[in-house]
Amino acid sequence: MDQTPPFDPADRASYRHWTEETVRFADLDPLGHANNNAVGVYFETARVTFLREIGLLDGADGQGTVVVRLAIDFRAELTFPNRLAIGTRLIRLGTSSFAYRQGLFVGDRCIATAETVSVLFNLGTRRADPLTGRQRSRLAAWR
Amino acid sequence: MDQTPPFDPADRASYRHWTEETVRFADLDPLGHANNNAVGVYFETARVTFLREIGLLDGADGQGTVVVRLAIDFRAELTFPNRLAIGTRLIRLGTSSFAYRQGLFVGDRCIATAETVSVLFNLGTRRADPLTGRQRSRLAAWR
Amino acid sequence: MDQTPPFDPADRASYRHWTEETVRFADLDPLGHANNNAVGVYFETARVTFLREIGLLDGADGQGTVVVRLAIDFRAELTFPNRLAIGTRLIRLGTSSFAYRQGLFVGDRCIATAETVSVLFNLGTRRADPLTGRQRSRLAAWR
Amino acid sequence: MDQTPPFDPADRASYRHWTEETVRFADLDPLGHANNNAVGVYFETARVTFLREIGLLDGADGQGTVVVRLAIDFRAELTFPNRLAIGTRLIRLGTSSFAYRQGLFVGDRCIATAETVSVLFNLGTRRADPLTGRQRSRLAAWR
Repeated sequence: MDQTPPFDPADRASYRHWTEETVRFADLDPLGHANNNAVGVYFETARVTFLREIGLLDGADGQGTVVVRLAIDFRAELTFPNRLAIGTRLIRLGTSSFAYRQGLFVGDRCIATAETVSVLFNLGTRRADPLTGRQRSRLAAWR
Repeated sequence: MDQTPPFDPADRASYRHWTEETVRFADLDPLGHANNNAVGVYFETARVTFLREIGLLDGADGQGTVVVRLAIDFRAELTFPNRLAIGTRLIRLGTSSFAYRQGLFVGDRCIATAETVSVLFNLGTRRADPLTGRQRSRLAAWR
Repeated sequence: MDQTPPFDPADRASYRHWTEETVRFADLDPLGHANNNAVGVYFETARVTFLREIGLLDGADGQGTVVVRLAIDFRAELTFPNRLAIGTRLIRLGTSSFAYRQGLFVGDRCIATAETVSVLFNLGTRRADPLTGRQRSRLAAWR
Repeated sequence: MDQTPPFDPADRASYRHWTEETVRFADLDPLGHANNNAVGVYFETARVTFLREIGLLDGADGQGTVVVRLAIDFRAELTFPNRLAIGTRLIRLGTSSFAYRQGLFVGDRCIATAETVSVLFNLGTRRADPLTGRQRSRLAAWR
């Protein structure tokens, strides 16, 4: 796999692509903070937004992406209400898969980081499709 | 109950209190639009934010609010991505209960309206508490 | 509209169609009970299961159903862990819409009741389709 | 850390503690399968149920557990409706943290596996508490 040099995923300076989010009351659990699954949802929306903005699936009929591995490190409690910024960066490109690192921030404070592996998914065959050259170059621009 | 004159809940001009929200990918269902339960979540966060901003529970030890009735009219499909504005207005004040009307908008287009009845809830007894005079006047200011 | 005689939606005896559900930890909110939106999710799964079991969409190309109105009365707190039973019954049949009443129970105790209006939805035009005679008779059997 | 010998997390025979779950319609995303965050929710409910059943927090005032790391491998698509079984097993015990492996199954087919690190959390100080001897022995019985 084509690999990015190491960087600190908890540092805002490591990211160029950003999305914003707000904590919802329904994200909270009985401990009074955002549940770990809500954090997964924030990262997901940021990835989908990233893929739309870079046009990964533009002109691609019947394709989507699916997550094959997700790992999240929870670094601080997240309370309500709050405004969040999510940084997303590509770190690896494979034949049909690609991996991201992401950071979730309140101001400069890192709340959580994530590493996700996704594959290009054929909605008809329900199997992985190889990335085209154009798809690879669109992703590679965000390492 | 102390009652507000009728108004059009689908008209932005009917509301003074506003919050903002963004559609998340996880809000979507297999029909490709925001699921009706996601709409309930948007309205809930707007109500909780409203109650915090008017200070309903300030100085109130061991109280919360719970929904006893929720009715939502879905008027248009909601797609991803989108930015939402939610207007909230008090319409009735009872002894321990109060009711809101709310409107969910994309620009000037009304996506859904809601009517919710909540009660002031004692977290110890798990029963309704009567609203104090101060609580009533804070709510009444937003009719 | 073709209408069902009145019945008590909080009485288990009012329902013939049943599904089961378990409360999840993620359904809980900071008040330590199932959030009102989780209750909406339980009712939704019961309705979708009902529609699959009666075969409403069998042989119907490109159709789904969407909720146009949802009203829930919350009658008791719901805690974790718990096993739930949801009763579903058709109450009205229109040209392209139909309405249900539902009850959510823990044992014989009614936790919440719901009234929902759905419409048959054309996934291509994104508009309502009229119910066919066959669809009407499949629904009508469950009043 | 006190460590368990390696085992195959995708094999049902690797687990003694089991919970059950059903897929909900709201778990589905636009690709028509259970969203990856729903899978995180299934694993969470299984862990919370496990901790209740072994009595980890019995007699422990003001403690909870929080997830500090969560890694999920998605091995197969999950459709609706479906009945799920989740196996949970302790794999490591630290001073205030402990780790699990989990497997999510439809019949004998493994849909996803997870590795989670949790810490014993003091709800007052909002920091980790060391596990007592009794807590350690209750957890250790499930390796």
